[in-house]
Amino acid sequence: MTSSGLRAKGKSNLNASITVALDAMGGDHAPDMVVAGADLARTRYPKVKYIFFGDERRIEALLEKRKALRPLVSIHHTDDAVDNDTKPSVALRSGRQSSMRLAIDAVAAGRADCVVSAGNTGALMAMAKIVLKTLPGIHRPAIASFIPTARGESVMLDLGANIECDAENLVQFAIMGSIFARTVLGIPEPTIGLLNVGAEQLKGNDAVRSAADILRGNPVAGLFHGFIEGNDIPAGTVDVIVTDGFTGNVALKLAEGMGKLYSGFLQRTFRSSLMARLGYLLAIGAFRKLRARVDPRRYNGGMFLGLSGVCVKSHGGIDAFGFANAIGVAVDLVAQGFNERISAELQRLAPAAPLQQ
Amino acid sequence: MTSSGLRAKGKSNLNASITVALDAMGGDHAPDMVVAGADLARTRYPKVKYIFFGDERRIEALLEKRKALRPLVSIHHTDDAVDNDTKPSVALRSGRQSSMRLAIDAVAAGRADCVVSAGNTGALMAMAKIVLKTLPGIHRPAIASFIPTARGESVMLDLGANIECDAENLVQFAIMGSIFARTVLGIPEPTIGLLNVGAEQLKGNDAVRSAADILRGNPVAGLFHGFIEGNDIPAGTVDVIVTDGFTGNVALKLAEGMGKLYSGFLQRTFRSSLMARLGYLLAIGAFRKLRARVDPRRYNGGMFLGLSGVCVKSHGGIDAFGFANAIGVAVDLVAQGFNERISAELQRLAPAAPLQQ
Repeated sequence: MTSSGLRAKGKSNLNASITVALDAMGGDHAPDMVVAGADLARTRYPKVKYIFFGDERRIEALLEKRKALRPLVSIHHTDDAVDNDTKPSVALRSGRQSSMRLAIDAVAAGRADCVVSAGNTGALMAMAKIVLKTLPGIHRPAIASFIPTARGESVMLDLGANIECDAENLVQFAIMGSIFARTVLGIPEPTIGLLNVGAEQLKGNDAVRSAADILRGNPVAGLFHGFIEGNDIPAGTVDVIVTDGFTGNVALKLAEGMGKLYSGFLQRTFRSSLMARLGYLLAIGAFRKLRARVDPRRYNGGMFLGLSGVCVKSHGGIDAFGFANAIGVAVDLVAQGFNERISAELQRLAPAAPLQQ
Repeated sequence: MTSSGLRAKGKSNLNASITVALDAMGGDHAPDMVVAGADLARTRYPKVKYIFFGDERRIEALLEKRKALRPLVSIHHTDDAVDNDTKPSVALRSGRQSSMRLAIDAVAAGRADCVVSAGNTGALMAMAKIVLKTLPGIHRPAIASFIPTARGESVMLDLGANIECDAENLVQFAIMGSIFARTVLGIPEPTIGLLNVGAEQLKGNDAVRSAADILRGNPVAGLFHGFIEGNDIPAGTVDVIVTDGFTGNVALKLAEGMGKLYSGFLQRTFRSSLMARLGYLLAIGAFRKLRARVDPRRYNGGMFLGLSGVCVKSHGGIDAFGFANAIGVAVDLVAQGFNERISAELQRLAPAAPLQQ
């Protein structure tokens, strides 16, 4: 596997002084895939440095085979790691020496510029909130991710950090998503859609209706598309999809599952007859390109937006290729100065347009 | 197009005395696709009769070209129809002579066994609730539909009738969905999953956690799989997917949109090179089968469960083939005696297992 499939857009000359804190013990295949992922990310960002938090002996053993990575790496040993089934509140209390917590601490202390973990999402969000704090003006951070669409890709938030959201939360997600699309994706005027059960103004629950009312009168309003429905997500109707964490989590996992379903259908179709098998042999090059385009590992990396520090959550079951993409997402957020830009934008918006009704 | 693609499972000998009330004016392509849809359904259910509610002159003109259908049809003229953007409350007050309302009235009066409409969903649900009433023991009806999965198909509810749901609503949806799967789909022990953001017991909002607690202690509990996530929908992890109307509506439309996205990707892939085009020519037969398998028109027909009368909502933008499938769904519900069975089952369950905590 080459680095050419990595989707991160950062320019390597920008990344000379970036250090990434890695939770080496988070994820189903840790620490192996964390080390291998960093080595793969190195081919794209040759100057980025890494601090691995976790079992030093195991990490050292893995690094022995990776000579080019070794000089870029320092290791911070700890025996403790957060389990996947640990409650966030328990992880907060008793996980102060965990690989996850120490990696976040490194960002707060300025020893690293961003943190990437494939561990327990709830624990990571709880620790990141306590340690890094939310940006001034932001009540609740949100998890955002890219999602492939017919028009390219959109960004969707929240994906599970906030199970129940009020109108103000949704408005803040819209603003953060919009700044993200402008600064990181480089879309000059990103459109924002609020996920609902219908496009008409009277549809939905109180939170989405009130959020839409506020967004219609906001400086981002020119870009507020209005309500969108489930089918608008893959259609790419808007650049930024805003929803509560319950709906967003279900939608993201459903979209990934549908990808698997169709890829299974496709495999069975090509195997269903001799003619179909021959057809596949002819079309194999084109299908390799399609597979790379929709590979869910390219879209790995949930960004925690709204924190005073860059924190990216990788899928737990991911491999090195997917983990390298999550590293790329974190490096890009740092290189583009996302947190500085979002703070400046929030300050610019705040006096002119109160976020509350 | 032949009738062989219709997915309805009813046996024609069962349908000798079934009469379907059709809202001839509901849907983007009404009344043409309503008449053409009934004619297509006739090839599958040759003895079913139809009452068309709507503009008699236009319906008569359309029937002139459909000699075999004509003897099975009677027409009830009305000038009034419910618009797509009419609020349900307004439709209730001022739509008493609408084609939609008169079709529902025919079921309440016993002149028809079921009603099918491709019109305004909110108005149809509001009218059906008022006219047909809910079944004893059911607080809120739900909209259910089939959804294609890796294992075949599952049934999902609610799809938009109830934007906010409490635990008791979700439990009732689980019971209705389970009876539906047993009686209409013929699955002896259907499994039930509650859609959530994670599989662990502590995940989600109060409603899903309390509903899960109740279902674990219920007679349907043996079949209660527990929480499922978005990716479990296309995986076919359970037979019955239970969720609130907001999440269910987004999920259904997203799943349909993902189907379109992948079908677009597939077309572009086969057109991307000469080799790929040749490959398509060889595999064309296999791909025709795949297209028929995932055709969203096969899954058309949202069933209103929990009413004292069979009411099926077709997609508004559907063609005759899809509308014929919605008719098939309604005829099947009548032929299988779904409402009688659900009433009997609710009575059987009620004393042994109170639905409230």
